[in-house]
Amino acid sequence: MQESYNKINTTSINPKRIETLVDGVFAIALTLLVLGITVPSIANPTETILYQSLLGLLPNFYGYFISFFLLAVFWRINHTQFNKIKRADDVMLWLVILWLVFVALVPFSAYFIGEYGNYQIPNIFFDLNLFAIGILLFLNWRHAVNSGLVDESAIKRRKSDLMANLMLPILSVIAIGVTFLPFLKEYGYGWSSIVYLAIPFFKHFIDS
Amino acid sequence: MQESYNKINTTSINPKRIETLVDGVFAIALTLLVLGITVPSIANPTETILYQSLLGLLPNFYGYFISFFLLAVFWRINHTQFNKIKRADDVMLWLVILWLVFVALVPFSAYFIGEYGNYQIPNIFFDLNLFAIGILLFLNWRHAVNSGLVDESAIKRRKSDLMANLMLPILSVIAIGVTFLPFLKEYGYGWSSIVYLAIPFFKHFIDS
Amino acid sequence: MQESYNKINTTSINPKRIETLVDGVFAIALTLLVLGITVPSIANPTETILYQSLLGLLPNFYGYFISFFLLAVFWRINHTQFNKIKRADDVMLWLVILWLVFVALVPFSAYFIGEYGNYQIPNIFFDLNLFAIGILLFLNWRHAVNSGLVDESAIKRRKSDLMANLMLPILSVIAIGVTFLPFLKEYGYGWSSIVYLAIPFFKHFIDS
Amino acid sequence: MQESYNKINTTSINPKRIETLVDGVFAIALTLLVLGITVPSIANPTETILYQSLLGLLPNFYGYFISFFLLAVFWRINHTQFNKIKRADDVMLWLVILWLVFVALVPFSAYFIGEYGNYQIPNIFFDLNLFAIGILLFLNWRHAVNSGLVDESAIKRRKSDLMANLMLPILSVIAIGVTFLPFLKEYGYGWSSIVYLAIPFFKHFIDS
Repeated sequence: MQESYNKINTTSINPKRIETLVDGVFAIALTLLVLGITVPSIANPTETILYQSLLGLLPNFYGYFISFFLLAVFWRINHTQFNKIKRADDVMLWLVILWLVFVALVPFSAYFIGEYGNYQIPNIFFDLNLFAIGILLFLNWRHAVNSGLVDESAIKRRKSDLMANLMLPILSVIAIGVTFLPFLKEYGYGWSSIVYLAIPFFKHFIDS
Repeated sequence: MQESYNKINTTSINPKRIETLVDGVFAIALTLLVLGITVPSIANPTETILYQSLLGLLPNFYGYFISFFLLAVFWRINHTQFNKIKRADDVMLWLVILWLVFVALVPFSAYFIGEYGNYQIPNIFFDLNLFAIGILLFLNWRHAVNSGLVDESAIKRRKSDLMANLMLPILSVIAIGVTFLPFLKEYGYGWSSIVYLAIPFFKHFIDS
Repeated sequence: MQESYNKINTTSINPKRIETLVDGVFAIALTLLVLGITVPSIANPTETILYQSLLGLLPNFYGYFISFFLLAVFWRINHTQFNKIKRADDVMLWLVILWLVFVALVPFSAYFIGEYGNYQIPNIFFDLNLFAIGILLFLNWRHAVNSGLVDESAIKRRKSDLMANLMLPILSVIAIGVTFLPFLKEYGYGWSSIVYLAIPFFKHFIDS
Repeated sequence: MQESYNKINTTSINPKRIETLVDGVFAIALTLLVLGITVPSIANPTETILYQSLLGLLPNFYGYFISFFLLAVFWRINHTQFNKIKRADDVMLWLVILWLVFVALVPFSAYFIGEYGNYQIPNIFFDLNLFAIGILLFLNWRHAVNSGLVDESAIKRRKSDLMANLMLPILSVIAIGVTFLPFLKEYGYGWSSIVYLAIPFFKHFIDS
């Protein structure tokens, strides 16, 4: 099937315009995250009440920062992938669009853990969202390499790249597992997202 | 009238900048869809209540996914059209802008079927919105072909293309018709949008 | 003062990146307009109630369409201006940014007449917003022509262009005047925006 | 560490695509500011009540205008910096992303001072947000100059540039200090943001 796709479509899909859509969706998703931090409605505000309401928004700020950071990581990986992709086909287009479905869903997931971050369900939902993003990024890269859409010089590194691209989905699975740790209920399920702070240690992965 | 337009304006409208506006509106409309899935306000949340509230959001998630998919299909067709369009005139500009009016309306339609998807009125509204998008896409292509704004090599396929571009509006009309089926009331009017799942079977149309 | 600006800055401001910002703000403002049409919250929905609530949204739809159309007109004029502008300076940059302040304000004005379109205050507010956009567009063009930022071949038409650019602000003033007509209170102040339908008749202006 | 980064990554990060993300986030943040001015819900509107409710929105309009202006200033400085930056590395990418975290936070800060502009806490929060934006812009420029990512011809001015880039964060600190002036409580803390009107007087800084 891929072969027939390539024959018909390689000339009609411009990777540059896919990049433009991706950059647009990311820029908007990143900026919409801020709507998860709503200014509190206070009938009789005082300095103390305003200060306390800011403290009460700390989980929302946490959800904002961690989601912004993770979206940026995914944008960075996409950026690196598309630097090596010379042609696009329809399978890639629809993998990217399915990927954007979950990228654009992140603001909801971020609002969700911002509101109920101490519960297990929202954290699992957040992790599943990231898992879907990570796995689709992996599938897109695998398709690009297998269908010869990638620049020749990048091919030789393909095996290590494929493994590397699996790191993020694996982290999501670990984060889900962590929410089942018995002591986490006491400390708050929000701590499970600390797993993602391991990402900078996989620098090679992100840089690959 | 078209002739005078062409004489005056062909040099002054750059198809690239129309593409930029189109890509911008699509990226934002796609990302705004997520605002149709609002985090529920729960006074005394428990894991069970949070899980059930997520289940209660299933229609909203459905509206999100189907609208994201359909907007992507329209973006893809526009993409294919503009690959063949070499010049733009004012008629095309205003057809595209009228088209964007209905593209940018999709988030509202999606929220509407997300909230009241089991009723007929919202489903018809959604279908009419898609019908308007599809028919304007058809009119734009017809204008482009008739006014010689299209790349020569693409002209020979114009008849089949015109027919193909009518497939989407026809699907919308069928979807409206389906909402009048007597047994649909029992199963829920939301099922009428299943008609759009026929789109991938018209691959040639989208690829054309 | 303009001279010193030119000396220092002409090389450092790229009109293309101003265009990018303008296109971004327009795409978002256009798409945000739809948030002025909110899905009604209905406790016990029926088909009749949903139909009536849609009818009740007609003023919001009107505000959506007229604002979308007017923003597109302004985008079109900006498009035409920047086709002729070869260089940018700081005065132009800040005129454009002040212009964008009022462009990005249009969603608020549109929501305002969508909610209270039958009152005089919101209609005057809407007209003043458009007046500010129109007059800044005029000032920007005047500055570009006077400071030699415009392509030579466009200079000769500058006088008629300047007059033409005044048409939109004049229409806004007329629309404000119309709201004071004694019989308008009975028919609803929303009719005052009918003045803007005269724009297509000034095709030369928009095409210039 | 910077050295190893440069070796591995200089070819893989395109400053143009960073610019695209920056422009996208700015365009959206600028346009989202308007959502801080919400159309009032009035049960029994009259012209007088609508006029008074507009007057009641004056602090929100003020927050809108000052934030729009300040974001535009930051966008302008970034614009000037990136005109001189020829290559990007990962440190720069993450400095820019951290910078965007605070840029995208501005709508929240603007809504906050729009609602409670007469209190000290929101004004300090707003100033701290701007301080973070300003200091990260400074750090990014310092990194670019020190790591040789900047165009040669711009290097010679680097010392004065570094000083100039510190002006904005210093203004934020002054604005915070002003909120502690004893008489400001009487006049309203919102006046503290008047400090930022000094920016046009540091034209050389913004133009550098």
